[in-house]
Amino acid sequence: MNRHSGIGALPYGIFSTPDEPHRRAGVALGDQIIDLPAAVRRLDPSLAAAVTGPTLDALLAAGPAVWSSLRASLITWVTDEAHRDLLPTVPAADAVMHLPFTVADYVDFYASEQHATNLGRILRPGQEPLTANWKHLPIGYHGRAGTVVVSGTDIVRPSGLRPGAEFGASQRLDIEAELGFVVGAPSTLGTPVPLADFDQHVFGVCLVNDWSARDIQAFEYVPLGPFLGKSFATSVSPWIVPLAALEHARVPPPVRDVPLSAYLDDEKTPSWGLDVRLEIRLNGQVISTPTFEGMYWTPAQMLAHMTVNGAALRTGDLYASGTISGGSPGSLIELSWNGQEPLHLADGSARAFLHDGDEVVISAVAPGENGTLISLGEVSGRILGAR
Amino acid sequence: MNRHSGIGALPYGIFSTPDEPHRRAGVALGDQIIDLPAAVRRLDPSLAAAVTGPTLDALLAAGPAVWSSLRASLITWVTDEAHRDLLPTVPAADAVMHLPFTVADYVDFYASEQHATNLGRILRPGQEPLTANWKHLPIGYHGRAGTVVVSGTDIVRPSGLRPGAEFGASQRLDIEAELGFVVGAPSTLGTPVPLADFDQHVFGVCLVNDWSARDIQAFEYVPLGPFLGKSFATSVSPWIVPLAALEHARVPPPVRDVPLSAYLDDEKTPSWGLDVRLEIRLNGQVISTPTFEGMYWTPAQMLAHMTVNGAALRTGDLYASGTISGGSPGSLIELSWNGQEPLHLADGSARAFLHDGDEVVISAVAPGENGTLISLGEVSGRILGAR
Repeated sequence: MNRHSGIGALPYGIFSTPDEPHRRAGVALGDQIIDLPAAVRRLDPSLAAAVTGPTLDALLAAGPAVWSSLRASLITWVTDEAHRDLLPTVPAADAVMHLPFTVADYVDFYASEQHATNLGRILRPGQEPLTANWKHLPIGYHGRAGTVVVSGTDIVRPSGLRPGAEFGASQRLDIEAELGFVVGAPSTLGTPVPLADFDQHVFGVCLVNDWSARDIQAFEYVPLGPFLGKSFATSVSPWIVPLAALEHARVPPPVRDVPLSAYLDDEKTPSWGLDVRLEIRLNGQVISTPTFEGMYWTPAQMLAHMTVNGAALRTGDLYASGTISGGSPGSLIELSWNGQEPLHLADGSARAFLHDGDEVVISAVAPGENGTLISLGEVSGRILGAR
Repeated sequence: MNRHSGIGALPYGIFSTPDEPHRRAGVALGDQIIDLPAAVRRLDPSLAAAVTGPTLDALLAAGPAVWSSLRASLITWVTDEAHRDLLPTVPAADAVMHLPFTVADYVDFYASEQHATNLGRILRPGQEPLTANWKHLPIGYHGRAGTVVVSGTDIVRPSGLRPGAEFGASQRLDIEAELGFVVGAPSTLGTPVPLADFDQHVFGVCLVNDWSARDIQAFEYVPLGPFLGKSFATSVSPWIVPLAALEHARVPPPVRDVPLSAYLDDEKTPSWGLDVRLEIRLNGQVISTPTFEGMYWTPAQMLAHMTVNGAALRTGDLYASGTISGGSPGSLIELSWNGQEPLHLADGSARAFLHDGDEVVISAVAPGENGTLISLGEVSGRILGAR
């Protein structure tokens, strides 16, 4: 849970402890968690309103000026010894982490060219793997906000109608390793958010495992898209890394081979390509190490696209990148090529898709200051048998 | 706004008045609105917790026992003269209506065989109009909860990429006349809600206009479904008619020609087919009168389907039926057969799709006690030019 070493990340989460079971905001620091409301009360009561409550909702809504000010204070407090000794902390090992914010709308994109190409080849062999619209806009769809769960929540294998209209437990339960972007400051209905305003609205980044029942999805998704194949659960990491912590991870996006509409054209705006390196472990064994660098669509483009029709943003909106398959794939359907080439695990077993009892952990790091790496923490989940 | 004559419906809404601008719950009764918190304080303080606050959220969460008890009290109060004189009311004409509840997740179905068949014929000529899955499950997808707006809210014409990757204001802006179902009592993650438990979770019914930009949708929707073509706005009627008011509107569903999976098979459960008769007016002129009776999938089946994979319900979840095209179509793309046969309006103008300044009003009635009709009110919206 607590892989945020050093002071670069200073991510925010919601925790409780057996001694003090009320949920409250914390900042991860090494193997400790700073009790944020207690710290602020002691060191800067002017920030109290933004960090109080059982979720990060007030902090998200407070907007970029407060985000900057709080982060600047935190950096002072953790780097200056006199302040650091005054910080109220609890050992991370004693804490239980909770869903850090109230998810408003959840949108899932499909922004990795490698992933979309792999899926096209697997699902529509003999055709152009990318649909005609793919390089013109970041394809996305709304998912179920009410089933976003925090890392560590068990995942019950879903049942539903599979190809042939056969009812039963999913036989093709999969993962999707993604980055999630958490909206803080809302926008006005009817007014698009331009590319350049990305960091005025987005608070930070988390890791997402968008669990997918490929067989349920295959039967249902024409013509209106994924529904029950996705809506049973989406896991998020408990720590939200603020955008400011990713300043050193920013990289140019890949060259686009199709001219972009003005609202998506990021040639003249500071880019939000990100060098984030993921690691996917299945029952402890690393099975893939995808990288976010090179994603065709940046999170700033996703935000501009999501609002170009005038759709409003709300505090707590979460949008995810879609499966990250740069370098190596972020899903089992790709890793096992639709089950034709099962993975062989160290214990001698094989995996096309997930078995009951399997545990998946996705973690990530990104470049920080002076050649350091900052951690984005991890998102984990274990599969329980169908009910 | 106030077409709820008689006492059958007793629908719930949220209103304010110029004199008392705080939002509060009301019950429509003829041309009056009962101030619900004030009435309960005077007549039955035990119900106060469920009817307090600026939304109906507490009432929705209170569950079916409280819903029954409150409705029984209201029926007594409005039918017994001594009580009726004590009811604090305001003229409906003086009230402003607000979004009645906090929308948690919004799901839109596609449950009308007539609508799905018409769309299939229009969009995929020469092919089977219904996709292979259509009669096996109620197809649905998640929409944007954050852009659900109350009746009377102006709708800004959305812009986006249209076929050919051309950016501009939608030229094919449409309506979809639907019924919406409002979830009150939540369910547990991992546990499906069976058909028979429909009325233990669903609080009531509203009217929905699911505005649709057909050209934006056409370019974006393969392979992950509608996104920006729908997410700019969805309008709902301000009055939620409780399920109990629709007891006399219940009708058998149509004969299904494909055997249903057990979780969807409603042969042996009381049916939730509904005789609800809609009227669509464009600039005051009736252009269509669809009926909900005969919808292939009932709202109880939609709920069972939405949760069969273990997805949890939350208080405030809204799901809509999809366009109702029984008897006559509930969308312009059907009425004008994709623009080939424009409607001719009384003012001499023609309509394939909506023009700026057009106002659409959808209203509905359903059978009540003893041959009366109860009103489901109306949902309206006017189109503003693109920004």
